[in-house]
Amino acid sequence: MKKAILDNRSKEISTEKSDAAIRMSVTPWEVEGEINYDKLIEEFGTRPLDSHLFSRLKDPMPPPVKRGMCFSHRDLDKWLDAYDNGDKVSVLSGRGPSEKMHIGHLTLYAIPKYFQDVYKCTVYIPVSDDEKFYVKEDLEIEDVEMFANDNILDILAMGFDPNKTIVHKDFEHTKIYKYAAQVAKKITYSTAKAVFGLKAENNIGWVFYPAMQATHILYPQFIEGQHLTLVPIGIDQDPFIRATRDIAEKFGFQKPATIHKKLAPGLEGPKMSSSGKNAIWLSDDEATVANKVHRYAFSGGQPSVKEHREKGGNPDIDVSFLYLKYFFEEDDNKLEQIVRGYRDGSLLSGELKEYFIEKVNNYLKEHRRRREIVAKNIDKYMLRD
Amino acid sequence: MKKAILDNRSKEISTEKSDAAIRMSVTPWEVEGEINYDKLIEEFGTRPLDSHLFSRLKDPMPPPVKRGMCFSHRDLDKWLDAYDNGDKVSVLSGRGPSEKMHIGHLTLYAIPKYFQDVYKCTVYIPVSDDEKFYVKEDLEIEDVEMFANDNILDILAMGFDPNKTIVHKDFEHTKIYKYAAQVAKKITYSTAKAVFGLKAENNIGWVFYPAMQATHILYPQFIEGQHLTLVPIGIDQDPFIRATRDIAEKFGFQKPATIHKKLAPGLEGPKMSSSGKNAIWLSDDEATVANKVHRYAFSGGQPSVKEHREKGGNPDIDVSFLYLKYFFEEDDNKLEQIVRGYRDGSLLSGELKEYFIEKVNNYLKEHRRRREIVAKNIDKYMLRD
Repeated sequence: MKKAILDNRSKEISTEKSDAAIRMSVTPWEVEGEINYDKLIEEFGTRPLDSHLFSRLKDPMPPPVKRGMCFSHRDLDKWLDAYDNGDKVSVLSGRGPSEKMHIGHLTLYAIPKYFQDVYKCTVYIPVSDDEKFYVKEDLEIEDVEMFANDNILDILAMGFDPNKTIVHKDFEHTKIYKYAAQVAKKITYSTAKAVFGLKAENNIGWVFYPAMQATHILYPQFIEGQHLTLVPIGIDQDPFIRATRDIAEKFGFQKPATIHKKLAPGLEGPKMSSSGKNAIWLSDDEATVANKVHRYAFSGGQPSVKEHREKGGNPDIDVSFLYLKYFFEEDDNKLEQIVRGYRDGSLLSGELKEYFIEKVNNYLKEHRRRREIVAKNIDKYMLRD
Repeated sequence: MKKAILDNRSKEISTEKSDAAIRMSVTPWEVEGEINYDKLIEEFGTRPLDSHLFSRLKDPMPPPVKRGMCFSHRDLDKWLDAYDNGDKVSVLSGRGPSEKMHIGHLTLYAIPKYFQDVYKCTVYIPVSDDEKFYVKEDLEIEDVEMFANDNILDILAMGFDPNKTIVHKDFEHTKIYKYAAQVAKKITYSTAKAVFGLKAENNIGWVFYPAMQATHILYPQFIEGQHLTLVPIGIDQDPFIRATRDIAEKFGFQKPATIHKKLAPGLEGPKMSSSGKNAIWLSDDEATVANKVHRYAFSGGQPSVKEHREKGGNPDIDVSFLYLKYFFEEDDNKLEQIVRGYRDGSLLSGELKEYFIEKVNNYLKEHRRRREIVAKNIDKYMLRD
C-alpha cells in the first residue's frame, strides 16, 4: 500500500506547473502563489523525504503522514536513529495565534500527534502570542490572548496526551525571556535582518522575536538537557530552523531536526495557501460547513453531470477530495474507491461534497466534545511561571 | 546657606573649560571627556534646576541635593505640584549591574532616598540585568546575576524603606516582558537606532532593550495607574527619558519627570567620569581605602608643604574634597571650615586625605552593617514572579 501512495504523491508533484517557482514567494511571514516543492527542496537545501526514509516510519500513520503531505526534512533519519538507540527524543510544533483555527491547521498538528502516539515522546507546543502581537499591527494584546487560549484548546482537542504534552505562551510563561536573552545575544541585527527580512520600520519586538522563536525550538534542550527535537513545519518556516541549528551548536545542543509539510489547500482551490479566507473554522456549525463546501469548495468535477459521467473528474485538484485524502479519510480502501469513482465519472462532484461534509461534521462534533474535556484539564498541559 | 551653596555651584561650572563641549561624547552607553553642563542643558533641551525651583525642595537635604549635584530637570516643578496637591507620586532609579558598586554610585542613590525620606513616596529600583548582559560582550549571565544581587544589597543598604521600595530584575521578574512587548510594538527599529545609536552588529537583545528600559520607567504607572514618576539620572541617560516621555502618552500615562545629576568625580581626577578605574569599592577594607586615597586621589594641593602654606590649595579640583562635599560631609559648617582651611593653606592635602579616609571608612563600616540586615530581609523589597 505504501508504495502506491508514494507513486500517487509523486504524480501529484509532477502535475504542478514547471514555472511555478518563478511566481512563488516564501518567507516566514508570507506565503503566496503556487509552490513547486521540488524547487523548494533545492532552494532551501533540505532533503526529500524519500521512499527509503518513509519506509522507516512506524505504523499506524495518520493520513497526512501516510499520504505524502510530508515532502522534505532535515535530520529525520538521525532522529529515528536516536529513537532506535533508545535516546531521549522530542517533538515540537508551535502556534502563532493570530486567528481562530480552521481545518487546514489540523493537517500540521496531526504530525506531532502521530509521533507522540507511535514514538511515545513528549510534544512541546510553544504558543507565540508575542510574535503575532508584534507582527499584526491591529492586533491588541487581549485579542492575541483570546486567540491563544482558543487555539490551544483546538490543538489539544486533537488528542494530545496530557502526560506528554507541554504548552507554553510567551506572555504567560515569561520565564522563557531569560533563555531568549541568551539566544538573542548570539544573533546580530544584521543576521536577523538577512534571515528574516526585517525592515527598519518594523518594531523592535519584531526584531527581537527571532531569538524567542529559536528559544522555543531549543527549549526542550534548555529544560531537559541536550537531545534531538523534531520540528514539523511548513517549509516557509525553514529559515528559522536553519538559524536555530547554527545557534544550537553554540549552546552545546543538538541541531533540531525537521520534517516539512506541504501547505494545506485553501477551500477555494488546491493551490496551496495558508490563508483562511472562506475557510472551514473548527467552530463552524453543521449548516455553515455544508453551505461553505457547497458554495466555495473548489471542485475537480466537470461543468455538467453529463460531461462528468463521460470524462470523469480530477481528484488531484478537488479540495473536498484533498481534505479527505490528507486528513479526514483514514480508510485507504475507501479513499481508493473514491479516487476510482471520481475518475471514472460514477461519483459526482455533489456526492463527493456530501460525503466530505458528513466527514467534516462528524469530526467537528467529536472535536468539540474533546475540546470541552481538554478545557477542564487545561492545567495539566500548561507550563506557567 | 542655600544661596551660598548655589553660588559655589555656579562658580564651579564657570571654571570648566569653554571648549569642553567639543570633546565630550554623551550617549547612553558611554561617557567620555570633560562635560560642560550648561552646554548639555542646551543640547538636551532640558531646564536648569534654578534657585527658584531649588528653594521649593523640602529640607533636610543630603549633600548631593543641597550642594548642587543636581543641575537640570524635566517637569520636576510638575512633580512638586502633584505632591503639593496630594496626588500620588513616585520616584524611580534603576541600576545596570555590570560591576560592583563604588562610592561614586552612592551620590545617585542618595537622591531617590532623599525623596523617599522627605516626600514619603515609593521608590522603584528596576535592575537591568538583561541590558548589561546584552551590551557587555564578555559578561556571562551568571556574572550579571552575581553583580545584580550584590548591587541591590549595596543600594538598599543606603537605608531605603522596605515598605516603600520595590526592586525587580528583568531575569527574575520576567512578567515585565508582557509590558515591554506592548512598549516594543510602539518603537520602530529606525527610531531605536536613531535615539540609541544602535549598530547593525549589535545583538537583537540590545535592539530590544530600549523597550525594556522604557517599560522600567513606566512600570510604576503600569502597575499602580497613571501618576507622575520622578527619575533621577545622569544626563547621558536622557535620550531614554525623552523617548519614554513620547511613549507614555500613547498609553495614557503621565510623562515621567527627571532630575539630572552630575557625574561623580573619578578618584584620579575631578573630570567627571563614570568609570570605576581605581575606584573605592563599597567592599574595600579600611587599609585598601587608605592606600587608594593616598596613592590615587587627585589632590588640589600644592607640590610642597611650603608652597601649600603660602598659596593654599584648590578644593574645587580635589577629589577628596569633592566627595566630602557631594556625599560624606553632612555638616555644612564643617565643610565651610575645610574650604577655608584648604584655600588659606592651613589644611594640608595629607590632612584632608586623612579626614576623607576616616569619613569613608566610617561610612563603609556602617554600610556593611546595614547591608547584612538588608540581606536578611531582601524578600521585603523584591518584586518576583
